[in-house]
Amino acid sequence: MLEDIKAEVYAANMALPANNLVTLTWGNVSQIDRESGYFVIKPSGVEYDKLTVNDMVVVDLEGKVIEGNLRPSSDTATHAYLYKMWPEIGGIVHTHSKWAVAFAQAGLPIPAAGTTHADTFYGAVPVADRLTKAEVDHEYELNTGKSIVRTFVNNNINPIAVPGVLTNDHGPFTWGKNAKEAVHNAIVLDVVAEMTYHTRQLNPENIEVPQYLLDRHYYRKHGPNAYYGQR
Amino acid sequence: MLEDIKAEVYAANMALPANNLVTLTWGNVSQIDRESGYFVIKPSGVEYDKLTVNDMVVVDLEGKVIEGNLRPSSDTATHAYLYKMWPEIGGIVHTHSKWAVAFAQAGLPIPAAGTTHADTFYGAVPVADRLTKAEVDHEYELNTGKSIVRTFVNNNINPIAVPGVLTNDHGPFTWGKNAKEAVHNAIVLDVVAEMTYHTRQLNPENIEVPQYLLDRHYYRKHGPNAYYGQR
Amino acid sequence: MLEDIKAEVYAANMALPANNLVTLTWGNVSQIDRESGYFVIKPSGVEYDKLTVNDMVVVDLEGKVIEGNLRPSSDTATHAYLYKMWPEIGGIVHTHSKWAVAFAQAGLPIPAAGTTHADTFYGAVPVADRLTKAEVDHEYELNTGKSIVRTFVNNNINPIAVPGVLTNDHGPFTWGKNAKEAVHNAIVLDVVAEMTYHTRQLNPENIEVPQYLLDRHYYRKHGPNAYYGQR
Amino acid sequence: MLEDIKAEVYAANMALPANNLVTLTWGNVSQIDRESGYFVIKPSGVEYDKLTVNDMVVVDLEGKVIEGNLRPSSDTATHAYLYKMWPEIGGIVHTHSKWAVAFAQAGLPIPAAGTTHADTFYGAVPVADRLTKAEVDHEYELNTGKSIVRTFVNNNINPIAVPGVLTNDHGPFTWGKNAKEAVHNAIVLDVVAEMTYHTRQLNPENIEVPQYLLDRHYYRKHGPNAYYGQR
Repeated sequence: MLEDIKAEVYAANMALPANNLVTLTWGNVSQIDRESGYFVIKPSGVEYDKLTVNDMVVVDLEGKVIEGNLRPSSDTATHAYLYKMWPEIGGIVHTHSKWAVAFAQAGLPIPAAGTTHADTFYGAVPVADRLTKAEVDHEYELNTGKSIVRTFVNNNINPIAVPGVLTNDHGPFTWGKNAKEAVHNAIVLDVVAEMTYHTRQLNPENIEVPQYLLDRHYYRKHGPNAYYGQR
Repeated sequence: MLEDIKAEVYAANMALPANNLVTLTWGNVSQIDRESGYFVIKPSGVEYDKLTVNDMVVVDLEGKVIEGNLRPSSDTATHAYLYKMWPEIGGIVHTHSKWAVAFAQAGLPIPAAGTTHADTFYGAVPVADRLTKAEVDHEYELNTGKSIVRTFVNNNINPIAVPGVLTNDHGPFTWGKNAKEAVHNAIVLDVVAEMTYHTRQLNPENIEVPQYLLDRHYYRKHGPNAYYGQR
Repeated sequence: MLEDIKAEVYAANMALPANNLVTLTWGNVSQIDRESGYFVIKPSGVEYDKLTVNDMVVVDLEGKVIEGNLRPSSDTATHAYLYKMWPEIGGIVHTHSKWAVAFAQAGLPIPAAGTTHADTFYGAVPVADRLTKAEVDHEYELNTGKSIVRTFVNNNINPIAVPGVLTNDHGPFTWGKNAKEAVHNAIVLDVVAEMTYHTRQLNPENIEVPQYLLDRHYYRKHGPNAYYGQR
Repeated sequence: MLEDIKAEVYAANMALPANNLVTLTWGNVSQIDRESGYFVIKPSGVEYDKLTVNDMVVVDLEGKVIEGNLRPSSDTATHAYLYKMWPEIGGIVHTHSKWAVAFAQAGLPIPAAGTTHADTFYGAVPVADRLTKAEVDHEYELNTGKSIVRTFVNNNINPIAVPGVLTNDHGPFTWGKNAKEAVHNAIVLDVVAEMTYHTRQLNPENIEVPQYLLDRHYYRKHGPNAYYGQR
């Protein structure tokens, strides 16, 4: 079942090592079929060079395995919660990409320091609230999802306009309309983390772009007046 | 038309990912035919591994498409303005290369901190004036070109001697007698940005080369007394 | 003799350059056969692209060569001592991987700054006591092993829970149940050193994960309640 | 003539891009035949992927071309002076490798911060005296050689024990008994520059190894009591 989505999720997972976003077996990508309410996700802890399309696991929004011989990613409950709360997204990526993790471990958001950021993220990429001991001890992965959604709600951030987050002490999650776009956003997030890390070292003050430049670049690529790329 | 230039522009665009200067679809190269006044530029937002020679777009100095099925780079108006104001240049490159962007986002010029810089850039690579809201809201890409030329004029910098600039909050543009030389200068710019970033961290003071060493290295490679390379 | 282990040790050694952990001939991997008490180790100073399975050297726990035409790694006595004192380990890796060396040269432990660290190392990776002149002048490699074990004993660290160390001014040693796992841990150690270096630059204070998050991630992958990966 | 040395010099030059030590056409390697007093060097400004064995140029110790159709490296006079003053060396490398250049531009020696350094360089790699205007204006490359030798003499450094130098504002030269060993030393120099840069950021104080550890590691690989590698 969901053979097309399995192929897309497999390709999107393989794009993670190809873009230097993962080490060893780390990272995972999923994509949802909104009709059935099932999503397809990478199995847990399998080496990328041994992964096949048929290893992809089909799960429902409670994280229950619907089809597949392998256990799904240990982060499945986080994916499920984001899909449940944000019906407008179709794909999710989690990595331990190095530059995004550096900010996540520092507990610092990635500010919109330039147009590279503004082209994809309409404002700073936030850090999700740190989980309490209770949230970590019990249903940790579900609570990770809850802390992400709560952070976006409390700070009035639109997850479509800012398609990524840093989980405190952990690493980035990104999303998009499908797995491919979520991978695109994971690539951009690590590049802007790298650039902005160096910008901060050069000039710690006042590195955010003016609002009008953020607007210009974001809307050059998004929305009805976008004029970047081919029609 | 302009088949030779299309081939050169295609090759120059493909040299960007080969030299790690671009991520995803970012970056663009153009080259002008001064006889016809037309220039050839990369189409907007096409993935490099899908790009072909025939995708190159021919435009005039007003940015109007003369030939080609695809939309030209969203930065076309910047290229056009530079070609119009600087008749001595023949090729232009724009990238979001990581080290040059770090300086651009910090709003800091790249000083001539060593002979690697002096071999190609006769002095610091400047940051173009930051655009106002009005300049960004209306004809942004044209105004980017205007701010570059204005910065060179106001600071009395010769664009042949310093064939590159950082646009504030954005990234580098470089140029040269043709697309190939503009790519060469884009490669050098990112390398010297990287080296000089680390030099600044080691020793924040007094990192500019003496004028006589700048002269020696620049004129070793440029002008009638150059003695680097083959005749 | 020990042909299977030779093949595993050869493969584990070749994994070092494949994972960018070594320059030139640096680094070495060994694995022990607990039944015979012999271990197999890389020969000293041989280039990786000339290395063959048959070059692997079999030595006993006094470091005496049992089989092989080449001299064993100059670090053999360190390996032997660790195998002797820690009967629960089966493989050892030594590298000069760049980020771990930076911490070793600085004499600083690598704190558990995030979940990437916590997944593999249950707490900070310590720096072994600096050797005295007498320890360096006489039986240097043996004394390196002794300083490692002493550091773990004195600081009450379990070498199974923290399968790695930085030797002061030198570089990392990691270990595991076999050579392959020791290489895995060497890869993770350098990645977390890199991430945590950048975290420290972003935010020098308070970068250690809370104990409950360290527990959660470590036990997600280790022990009877582990739920990461396939069964 | 000198066909064997041409082949070695060609291979050594090609090892520079293979080890990420050069960008574009930068860098050059030479090796001397002490019997004839001629040395073989890379031609000036030729792209590495177009270089052939037959492009190598034979010059004498005054820098006069003895054989070859191409102009020799613009740094030929520096090589010639070092060969003339240091009869014990047989090969020389010059690069603009990034980390060594960062220290050269900062005017800072690379201290012996760890055993990776001590294995190859018996003490800090010095910065040669900055050249005066007169020295740069007239016979610049010869004066570069003179400043290197003067720096070693004045600071009582043995060029065999410390086979490398940073030229101020410029970049590294390394040497060895032949071209291959000089390349080896160029590789090590950039790696130790990278490691020690990061060590300084982590801990700016007191990063030099104790003398007894420097002795131990250097003499483990060099001199009559060396025991690293195969006999």
